[in-house]
Amino acid sequence: MTKQYALADIAKLIGADLLNADDKTMVTGFATLQNAGPHQIAFFTNPKYLTSLKETKAAAVILSNEVKDQCPVNALVMSNPYLGFAKAASLFDDTPVLATGIHPTAIIDPSAKIASSAKIGPYVVIGKNCEIADEVSINAHCTISDDVLIGQGSVLKSNVNIYHRVKIGKNCIIHSGAVIGSDGFGMANDQGRWVKIPQLGGVLIGDEVEIGANTTIDRGALEDTVIETGVKIDNQVQIAHNVVIGAHTAMAAKVGIAGSTKIGRYCLIGGAAGITGHIEITDKVIVAAMSGISHSINQPGMYSSAIPAREVRSWNKTVAHINRLDKMAAKVKVLVSKLGLNEKDQHE
Amino acid sequence: MTKQYALADIAKLIGADLLNADDKTMVTGFATLQNAGPHQIAFFTNPKYLTSLKETKAAAVILSNEVKDQCPVNALVMSNPYLGFAKAASLFDDTPVLATGIHPTAIIDPSAKIASSAKIGPYVVIGKNCEIADEVSINAHCTISDDVLIGQGSVLKSNVNIYHRVKIGKNCIIHSGAVIGSDGFGMANDQGRWVKIPQLGGVLIGDEVEIGANTTIDRGALEDTVIETGVKIDNQVQIAHNVVIGAHTAMAAKVGIAGSTKIGRYCLIGGAAGITGHIEITDKVIVAAMSGISHSINQPGMYSSAIPAREVRSWNKTVAHINRLDKMAAKVKVLVSKLGLNEKDQHE
Amino acid sequence: MTKQYALADIAKLIGADLLNADDKTMVTGFATLQNAGPHQIAFFTNPKYLTSLKETKAAAVILSNEVKDQCPVNALVMSNPYLGFAKAASLFDDTPVLATGIHPTAIIDPSAKIASSAKIGPYVVIGKNCEIADEVSINAHCTISDDVLIGQGSVLKSNVNIYHRVKIGKNCIIHSGAVIGSDGFGMANDQGRWVKIPQLGGVLIGDEVEIGANTTIDRGALEDTVIETGVKIDNQVQIAHNVVIGAHTAMAAKVGIAGSTKIGRYCLIGGAAGITGHIEITDKVIVAAMSGISHSINQPGMYSSAIPAREVRSWNKTVAHINRLDKMAAKVKVLVSKLGLNEKDQHE
Repeated sequence: MTKQYALADIAKLIGADLLNADDKTMVTGFATLQNAGPHQIAFFTNPKYLTSLKETKAAAVILSNEVKDQCPVNALVMSNPYLGFAKAASLFDDTPVLATGIHPTAIIDPSAKIASSAKIGPYVVIGKNCEIADEVSINAHCTISDDVLIGQGSVLKSNVNIYHRVKIGKNCIIHSGAVIGSDGFGMANDQGRWVKIPQLGGVLIGDEVEIGANTTIDRGALEDTVIETGVKIDNQVQIAHNVVIGAHTAMAAKVGIAGSTKIGRYCLIGGAAGITGHIEITDKVIVAAMSGISHSINQPGMYSSAIPAREVRSWNKTVAHINRLDKMAAKVKVLVSKLGLNEKDQHE
Repeated sequence: MTKQYALADIAKLIGADLLNADDKTMVTGFATLQNAGPHQIAFFTNPKYLTSLKETKAAAVILSNEVKDQCPVNALVMSNPYLGFAKAASLFDDTPVLATGIHPTAIIDPSAKIASSAKIGPYVVIGKNCEIADEVSINAHCTISDDVLIGQGSVLKSNVNIYHRVKIGKNCIIHSGAVIGSDGFGMANDQGRWVKIPQLGGVLIGDEVEIGANTTIDRGALEDTVIETGVKIDNQVQIAHNVVIGAHTAMAAKVGIAGSTKIGRYCLIGGAAGITGHIEITDKVIVAAMSGISHSINQPGMYSSAIPAREVRSWNKTVAHINRLDKMAAKVKVLVSKLGLNEKDQHE
Repeated sequence: MTKQYALADIAKLIGADLLNADDKTMVTGFATLQNAGPHQIAFFTNPKYLTSLKETKAAAVILSNEVKDQCPVNALVMSNPYLGFAKAASLFDDTPVLATGIHPTAIIDPSAKIASSAKIGPYVVIGKNCEIADEVSINAHCTISDDVLIGQGSVLKSNVNIYHRVKIGKNCIIHSGAVIGSDGFGMANDQGRWVKIPQLGGVLIGDEVEIGANTTIDRGALEDTVIETGVKIDNQVQIAHNVVIGAHTAMAAKVGIAGSTKIGRYCLIGGAAGITGHIEITDKVIVAAMSGISHSINQPGMYSSAIPAREVRSWNKTVAHINRLDKMAAKVKVLVSKLGLNEKDQHE
């Protein structure tokens, strides 16, 4: 049975104006502007796809007021069409959900408290003194160690691993393969040999946090590693011990944050960026993909050290020049001195 | 019981000429040129190891015609000795295989269709409407959500996690910890708060694809993420939603590909390279390890932005020069102007 | 029941001098200098926190002789206070431990030898001919293939995946999601198509090795991948086939080492650094975070190619200059020639 919705109902749900309000078309799904058929809706936010908008065969398009006249089909007009897309897409989400109750193969310590509306999948293992709140879903093969709290409505996909003393807020989503609360990388050197520093802290995760597949978040050395409310973390991100990530910050895949660094709120960290340890990044900082942050940042704005790739022979010449910059600078200095240039000249 | 093979049989299998065709030596395994004993074979493809070739005690060496005279032992001569190595090595592969049938601890939804020759290991969980074809091996602890198709002869190592609506072709190999079909990193911003965009697409994987350990491939937002036939993906690679990887492309470990990017066929992507979203890379592009691709590439060839490390004090001076390039360029401009150089001079 | 220890006993354990030896304070835990209360101890090693030391309310502080006079509370004085922290922290480590014995849901091949003091958790799967030594802990959901040896006292956290023929030494710790022994990324090209090279080697891991969450270590192509004694590896590190890591080397998160590279002993590899294949790094080399090593290194010391991020508009101008370095160098050359500068001038 395919779900279907009247356009007018979708408009109401997402808070859009339906231009032709009498349209009785039933919508069965979402598609791109290019591929949408007469029972699918699409959205338009990227000017690059204007031609696709003009040629679309969709039932309707979610778009902003400025472009409504260029839409050949019915329009769902709103100021933030991307948000409309997010809301409307949820109507057609067929992500499987667990049945309520505890699967008979789950192994749950008798001291754990599992809310009656929680859903616990096959082969889940839950340790001592855990508290699993209402409407939580813990999918197959998750392992949850002792003293873990999971707040109402949170979802753990299959095979999430939670170490002891991790606290997870409400309505979080944690994807498969994520590991939360593993030991921070702490060790003391004793005449060349490494001695492990037991990691005594935990991990504290706020509400509405999403954590991507195979992401790792280490427990703190003494105090907790903290992920504040609304933070969104993509796949294969590494967050070291005692890091604090401020509320509503988003970080793309493969980011790495070294120990004890504090990231502000509303930051955007691009894919594969690296942030060194023991620094502070203020609110609303944007870090470009593949950039390395080595010092604290106290001004909002965008920061980068990314170098775009070029054809390799040309690039190799550039690297050779980079490696000879010392000599080039010395030559320029001598030239400047020979010609008696002064500061004023240099800024002409 | 050690397996053993006659040299002549190996020659036939790999399509090589055995120089001394009367050699009755039995071969029990493979080793490097340096370490091979009189019942082991070796291969030679890298000129760097010519001395090792000349001193080898192997039963025989797989090599090309040009170097056969330098081989002190019997030779298996063929135009692509590395391919010969691949084929001959398969004789000695002792990777454990599952027994045919379904392990009694596997939990399989009654609506799933499992071919009678499929092999399903302990604690595997398989969801609704899945189709598992002949000779498929699904090792211990894999979790497979609803509506997943796995084609004939494919192997999932232990603990692979497949989300719903993922289609996997024939003869694929997926290594432990890989996550296929996790949600793409899509969200709309609503006045500072992130609203999740349900990821309605799936993942479509062709035949003969290999996917490395702990690699993650996200499902598409509206349409599928696509990995075409013959693609080889190493460990810890991240492939975002709606990426398309063309047939026979290989990517080394730790590569990250951002959303909606289309990679051509027969590309080679070096380790830890990063490719931004919404771009197109044509066929036969080679990306150097640790390089960042920020624009579409429409010419085959090799591209790089990698900078080789140097001794740190020297490198730090270089970084200081890089950060002052603006000033250096200004000085050079003034010098050029003072001396009245023209374009012709500059290209002498 | 909170554990508590007398200060004098802690001093004895860690080999420190307790300045006020008559202090009978009982210690219940560790905290930072800022947050420690009158029954907690702290440590001081970073001069940046001198103000916190002077204001601490801790029961005592582990510190070195030079700063003992600045400590307002009792002091535990020793030459390596960070080592003292490591040792004292172990008193308060509450990491859950498995019960001795084999959980009834573990599936263990009859040919495997499990020491009577080993601890095997729920849903663990252990293959043929494995040998699990005394005091080994294998937590829930680990999968261990055939012919694996695990030495005395080693701990596998939940959901570790070990392929066949991996040998792990004594007192190792392997964190959740780690994959050891997956196939190396080896393939021969046959007219555009990739042919898999079976990976016939194994993995050999020494004693006292720690391996982080979601780290992957591939098996060798012909011989073993080797991790020597005392090596410490953080999360999400990738070690390719036939790599050798020398004893007591430490590598931070997200490092990638390409195939057949040999790293020396006592090296420190910074986070997200990449090391190319088929090279040798000598002992006591330090690689800065996010650096790329493309050539063998035969001198101890620190190496870097990391570029710190800057405000993006300024950085983009720098990138433009980098891409025009060829032209700048040509201009400087002409200027030098016009002015008749000689080598001596250029080095004034």
